Amino acid sequence: MPNKSKPAGKLISFEGSEGSGKSTQIARLAAHLQKIGREVVATREPGGTEIGEQIRNIIVHNSRGDEMCPETELLLFTAARAQVVREVIAPALQRGAVVLSDRYLDSSTVYQGIARNLAPGPVSEINQFAVGNVMPDLTIVIDVPTEVSLARIRQRASDLPDRMERENISFYTKVREGYLLLAKQWPGRVVVLDGTLTPDQLDQLVWAAVEPRLA
Amino acid sequence: MPNKSKPAGKLISFEGSEGSGKSTQIARLAAHLQKIGREVVATREPGGTEIGEQIRNIIVHNSRGDEMCPETELLLFTAARAQVVREVIAPALQRGAVVLSDRYLDSSTVYQGIARNLAPGPVSEINQFAVGNVMPDLTIVIDVPTEVSLARIRQRASDLPDRMERENISFYTKVREGYLLLAKQWPGRVVVLDGTLTPDQLDQLVWAAVEPRLA
Repeated sequence: MPNKSKPAGKLISFEGSEGSGKSTQIARLAAHLQKIGREVVATREPGGTEIGEQIRNIIVHNSRGDEMCPETELLLFTAARAQVVREVIAPALQRGAVVLSDRYLDSSTVYQGIARNLAPGPVSEINQFAVGNVMPDLTIVIDVPTEVSLARIRQRASDLPDRMERENISFYTKVREGYLLLAKQWPGRVVVLDGTLTPDQLDQLVWAAVEPRLA
Repeated sequence: MPNKSKPAGKLISFEGSEGSGKSTQIARLAAHLQKIGREVVATREPGGTEIGEQIRNIIVHNSRGDEMCPETELLLFTAARAQVVREVIAPALQRGAVVLSDRYLDSSTVYQGIARNLAPGPVSEINQFAVGNVMPDLTIVIDVPTEVSLARIRQRASDLPDRMERENISFYTKVREGYLLLAKQWPGRVVVLDGTLTPDQLDQLVWAAVEPRLA
């Protein structure tokens, strides 16, 4: 019998505006990976741990959300991330799992950094402090035009009180441009996919990006 | 009639181990300042804003507190601080108030940095990001021997579930030494007072440190 060695753990993050279709693609990729025998751990940001979910509550459902300053927002997101990295992601990678993270450090770079105009130096340093050496092996940005993203958000009526989805069109334009900029800065790690394709088409492109990185 | 100009706002932070007697001294100083006609704003860390109090709840009353990693703890404390600085402290200083803060950025340097062994570089950068340019005009460290501090903590039975007070003696020794180190690094800003003196004696020393800085 061949010696069956433990597969290498991989961290794959999904990024993109709200309404880009990340969740659908994460669920499909998770199913595919499990079918080929890989352990899959899915986490979401902010959250993914008990402490992180408490932080998520403060960020997402804060009734006085408009008064939260961008510095606090960044520090809360990175606090939740620091916890999920050490409590969930790092141990899962050690076991050889594939970790699928719905948002990761690039969200802070783009949302709090670029879209809210925080200085890029501190944002990058705080991001690095939070994740330590746990960087994604692959980051899939699902890119949709801002109008498409906003139209999809508006269809999800139940999500409307969420402060992250009450932002205006110029904010989401900055978010989109921020992700495209990141893809240029990290061409080996960040792959941009066209979120206006059908879920089946996207599915194939996601797998084409993931498969060569599993070895 | 002389032109009565607005007094300059001042930020005075109080630091020291739990059980050092900070709260008593803050209350006495606040009363004294009000008696001489100054507006006093007292804040506590973490907390002092609605968002900050929610963050405080996560930190202080987390039933799974032992699992909170030091990086998360630092980012939560600084998140609360970033909010109170912008929502409360900076506007109060603008009005000419004296702000008395029960703990401020030195607590992160000492508790999360020195006592929990986080690297000093990132702790300092994150602290600076959180407070911006709002540094204390005066920091009063009330210093008590670790055994005295622990004995006082144990007397407050109701506080025992608070995870910050369940730490061991070596942790509090590092905290104490950390504050004394800070006082050496910032001799112009940080004043160390002997917390084993009587409240009345301390009161006089606090006022002797505060008065010349009010001008």
